[in-house]
Amino acid sequence: MADAVRALAIDAVEAAKSGHPGMPMGMADVATALFTKVLKYDAADPRWPDRDRFVLSAGHGSMLLYALLHLTGHAGMGIEELRRFRQLHSPAAGHPEFGEHPGIETTTGPLGQGIATAVGMALAERMLAARFGASLVDHRTWVIASDGDLQEGVSHEAASLAGHYGLSKLCVLWDDNHISIDGDTALSFSEDVLKRFQAYGWAVRRIDGHDAAAIEGAMAWAIRNRKPTLIACRTIIGFGAPTKAGTAGSHGSPLGAAEAAAAKELLGWTAPAFTVPEDLKTAWEAAGRRSAGTRRSWLKRLAKHPQGAEFDRAMAGRLPESWHEALVALRAKHAEEKPKIATRVASQKALEALVPSVPEMVGGSADLTGSNNTNVKGIPPIAPGNFAGRFVHWGVREHGMAAAMNGMALHGGIIPYSGTFLVFSDYMRPSIRLAALMRQRVIHVLTHDSIGLGEDGPTHQPVEHVASFRAMPNVCVFRPADAMETAECWELAVKRADGPSLLALSRQNLPALRSDTGENRCARGGYVLAEASGARRATLIATGSEVHIALAARDALEAEGIPTALVSLPCWEIFAAQDASYRDQVLGSALRVGVEAAVGMGWERWLGTDGIFVGMGGFGASAPAEDLYRHFGITADAITAAVKKRLA
Amino acid sequence: MADAVRALAIDAVEAAKSGHPGMPMGMADVATALFTKVLKYDAADPRWPDRDRFVLSAGHGSMLLYALLHLTGHAGMGIEELRRFRQLHSPAAGHPEFGEHPGIETTTGPLGQGIATAVGMALAERMLAARFGASLVDHRTWVIASDGDLQEGVSHEAASLAGHYGLSKLCVLWDDNHISIDGDTALSFSEDVLKRFQAYGWAVRRIDGHDAAAIEGAMAWAIRNRKPTLIACRTIIGFGAPTKAGTAGSHGSPLGAAEAAAAKELLGWTAPAFTVPEDLKTAWEAAGRRSAGTRRSWLKRLAKHPQGAEFDRAMAGRLPESWHEALVALRAKHAEEKPKIATRVASQKALEALVPSVPEMVGGSADLTGSNNTNVKGIPPIAPGNFAGRFVHWGVREHGMAAAMNGMALHGGIIPYSGTFLVFSDYMRPSIRLAALMRQRVIHVLTHDSIGLGEDGPTHQPVEHVASFRAMPNVCVFRPADAMETAECWELAVKRADGPSLLALSRQNLPALRSDTGENRCARGGYVLAEASGARRATLIATGSEVHIALAARDALEAEGIPTALVSLPCWEIFAAQDASYRDQVLGSALRVGVEAAVGMGWERWLGTDGIFVGMGGFGASAPAEDLYRHFGITADAITAAVKKRLA
Repeated sequence: MADAVRALAIDAVEAAKSGHPGMPMGMADVATALFTKVLKYDAADPRWPDRDRFVLSAGHGSMLLYALLHLTGHAGMGIEELRRFRQLHSPAAGHPEFGEHPGIETTTGPLGQGIATAVGMALAERMLAARFGASLVDHRTWVIASDGDLQEGVSHEAASLAGHYGLSKLCVLWDDNHISIDGDTALSFSEDVLKRFQAYGWAVRRIDGHDAAAIEGAMAWAIRNRKPTLIACRTIIGFGAPTKAGTAGSHGSPLGAAEAAAAKELLGWTAPAFTVPEDLKTAWEAAGRRSAGTRRSWLKRLAKHPQGAEFDRAMAGRLPESWHEALVALRAKHAEEKPKIATRVASQKALEALVPSVPEMVGGSADLTGSNNTNVKGIPPIAPGNFAGRFVHWGVREHGMAAAMNGMALHGGIIPYSGTFLVFSDYMRPSIRLAALMRQRVIHVLTHDSIGLGEDGPTHQPVEHVASFRAMPNVCVFRPADAMETAECWELAVKRADGPSLLALSRQNLPALRSDTGENRCARGGYVLAEASGARRATLIATGSEVHIALAARDALEAEGIPTALVSLPCWEIFAAQDASYRDQVLGSALRVGVEAAVGMGWERWLGTDGIFVGMGGFGASAPAEDLYRHFGITADAITAAVKKRLA
Repeated sequence: MADAVRALAIDAVEAAKSGHPGMPMGMADVATALFTKVLKYDAADPRWPDRDRFVLSAGHGSMLLYALLHLTGHAGMGIEELRRFRQLHSPAAGHPEFGEHPGIETTTGPLGQGIATAVGMALAERMLAARFGASLVDHRTWVIASDGDLQEGVSHEAASLAGHYGLSKLCVLWDDNHISIDGDTALSFSEDVLKRFQAYGWAVRRIDGHDAAAIEGAMAWAIRNRKPTLIACRTIIGFGAPTKAGTAGSHGSPLGAAEAAAAKELLGWTAPAFTVPEDLKTAWEAAGRRSAGTRRSWLKRLAKHPQGAEFDRAMAGRLPESWHEALVALRAKHAEEKPKIATRVASQKALEALVPSVPEMVGGSADLTGSNNTNVKGIPPIAPGNFAGRFVHWGVREHGMAAAMNGMALHGGIIPYSGTFLVFSDYMRPSIRLAALMRQRVIHVLTHDSIGLGEDGPTHQPVEHVASFRAMPNVCVFRPADAMETAECWELAVKRADGPSLLALSRQNLPALRSDTGENRCARGGYVLAEASGARRATLIATGSEVHIALAARDALEAEGIPTALVSLPCWEIFAAQDASYRDQVLGSALRVGVEAAVGMGWERWLGTDGIFVGMGGFGASAPAEDLYRHFGITADAITAAVKKRLA
């Protein structure tokens, strides 16, 4: 049966004239054992919530996954799709893309991401089992990982976390083929991988990846084990290719017609291209139905379960009916009390309203809990052996945190939110990009969001990060100006089901700017916070901690008889999606002045080339915040002077 | 003597009302042993090339380093500087900042970076020793690292590399204090760190970090060892503080006046704040002169060494006299032959001209050597035990590569250049940011730079990366359009001594656009590649692989009687630094149209709000490149139609 995987992989890569045949050919035996004997899934319902998750971390071997989905009888992955491997609109894309086919659990390709995402899936399983019980949630997470996956730093962070939390239902099948694109892995890779994973608290085993009995034995061992497991599967890359097997020549390019034909001959495969003999296809499709009975029993349990409807709701990503009542009440309270607090503290207040109302929200911090204000009183953290909590101490592992959060969101039933400093969003960027590409609801709380953090200096002052994420498609960057806007932005972030949201929050206290209640004004991305007293001569446009500075400038200009409006622009992406007439009305036709304690990249979009930008021209410095704002000229006086000079 | 470090750390953090006193107090004994008994340095010349390098990876404990520099008698770190800890213009910044004081070897603070940078320094030492011999290059690299450093993924990549290459002159002193900001490290960290490092091929040892004899013994053991070494120093964070020692309370905030006074009493420290008793200061300053004789002997050897002048030149970062002759010849050849090649291949040709002429250039790739085209025939790779090469197989470790490259550049004597796909620049971003902040000459070769890579799909198509690095201060992003521009951009990147350069290069072949010789036209960042035949009605502005598409559109518009100019804009940062009159002349006042197969973020700067942008609106897709360009509407026809519609 494994040869059917090999033959399809050869054919599809040849037809596409590009792709990676070596990995599917090498791991075909392991994958066949998994999909025909071990993995709990039902091809008739690839989204069955209690299925085992399978993550192809080595995403370049995508044909392995597509061949398995095809052979096991998944709808939507017929032979025509395989023929169109790597062609426009085919679900069989170059790398597995979440959303292209329901049997694809996550997008992989950037190495290390799959294994770290799988850790999040395994963690989600434990947390949902703690919430709903083992009768609804009891499944495993299986990963096929390459040498490259294990070389990437994020694999360290994720594996260390999995060991710490004892995620025993996670099993990584390492394709230990000794070959990477540059050649023998010994060129750059000589660590003792098994010992390293043992150090993380994993159980490890080494097998011949072409020995079916050994493979099944190891998988049974993994299932029995009380630790996360790593099975080193010694394989031959390109298994079956007469001259290219065991070499980098089979890694990243088609075998070529002659080698492909010779490989099939060697394997004894006589069927024409893209054809699987009927008896083999029948056997594969039977494997795809192996767990159908298990699924039916599970559906019956779900129907009778007291929390069945709640489980369905959480897994479907629908928010509870009254999810934002407490938040609306908090906004009313802010309107009344006008608290002068940091937006990171305002974020904590928003979380205190949200987290008790939205039981699927799970928070955390990369060892900056007190600084990020992401904890909520009365909501306990999880701990090894105790998953009945809703807060994760991720350790100093931003990248692993972000990747695992993707896995939690993909698993379903959890809305994860993080905490770290905005500057360390750089560490998470590869995972945030995948969240954006997969349109997952993950929320990152990113505090200490400008030079306003003060003394920690330029290594910690994120002058370019807001711009760099505004450049990333499908991401919403929120930078609220006060407690009210923070509550509003949190509401939008939780409601946003189709992509990640970043909240850039201040360390320093900020005055309250609004006392209106009712409408969520951030819901249009930007709005006029203070209209000019007459025909506008200038419009100040600011975000976050600079809005109150711009307000002081606006008031000073008004006092000098220069009618000036102030626009708060907490979310560019939402504002850009408003109709042009609204945007034009908000921004006006008078001189436009942007104010943000960050680089000006992208501001020309709102200011035009004639506008003025008051912000940073480079990196920050170490000093108390007020000194820095003065030093870099981001003050009401500087804004006022710049406007007057231009209008003079 | 260690108490002097503790007292100064207490005083400075109290005075600044912010900072991390616990780490300097905990590691004072270890650091004192290192700086008074072991480390080879001379306070009279902190830039002595053959000094041992000391990297404070746990940069938040910056007062440890400043106290050591002060006590050992380094100029420029007097008591006044310590009093101004974390104040504007003080060299004693919140975190150690390279350039603020010559005794600061690297900027640290973002965890994991220091240890990975140190691996690059240790590698540079081995490579320069292979080139110049042990009489000129024979020093060690010492690192103080925290729990957080070891949790970060980049520490895994770097430690694995150090083990692979057997960097035995690298020693990491791990501040094993069991405390992180969130509390006990056991909250999130339960791996067996020593076993993990053994798995990487390191030698490890555990000691009491407050036992002077044990510390010195372990350092002597490290010096004798033939592997990189990790010494786990069990310490008490905030050692000496009566109630906060051993707790997170001493980690990230001042002790407070009462606790500070009680700590000094407990330590038996009676001197006033910011005062070190004379006998202690004398002993410390003697320690700072310990290696003065060694340095004088070394200077004599240097003066007599046949390669002494060459060593000086390389360490000073001055290029060889005739460094670009071969490159100029290559440009002339391109003008004549007009090769239609991918810019990644053109980059290889540029390297074939440069690398033999610039012996300090050291290349590499993160396991994509054949795809990145960063290897040069006849230039061997280094290997464990053999450092007489100039190419590094970094493995699938982009982040570790970028951090180590920073270390090589900081060490001096090496101009490192990398190779990976542009999309994986995300993995390197925290290290590239530090290169920018420290203004180091590191060059990243980033191939497969747009949807033009085709079938690998959206995970591999870097639509937002060019914009995201244009947002980062001090970085030059080069995106050349053909072989000629590639040679010119390489020339600029190598010449640029004060910051990192990124080269975004195509996978696909591109036609040659220029046949002029002489002047490096990319040296102004952008230029008119084809002037309009009459008064301009439109100016097309493009970069990289879209310039030839824009040229076809320009020719079509000209053929329809619409005088149209074409501007190539390979480096925005350099173009922005030209005087306004040049920029205005290049960009013109006619309709401006930007063409780039990437998101439009930032293009308004050149196009104004009235311009047209032809590029990507979101992520890419998996298909052959030509199909994708058509699918996303980045074609000459689309540009022509958009211009005609606007002008109609």
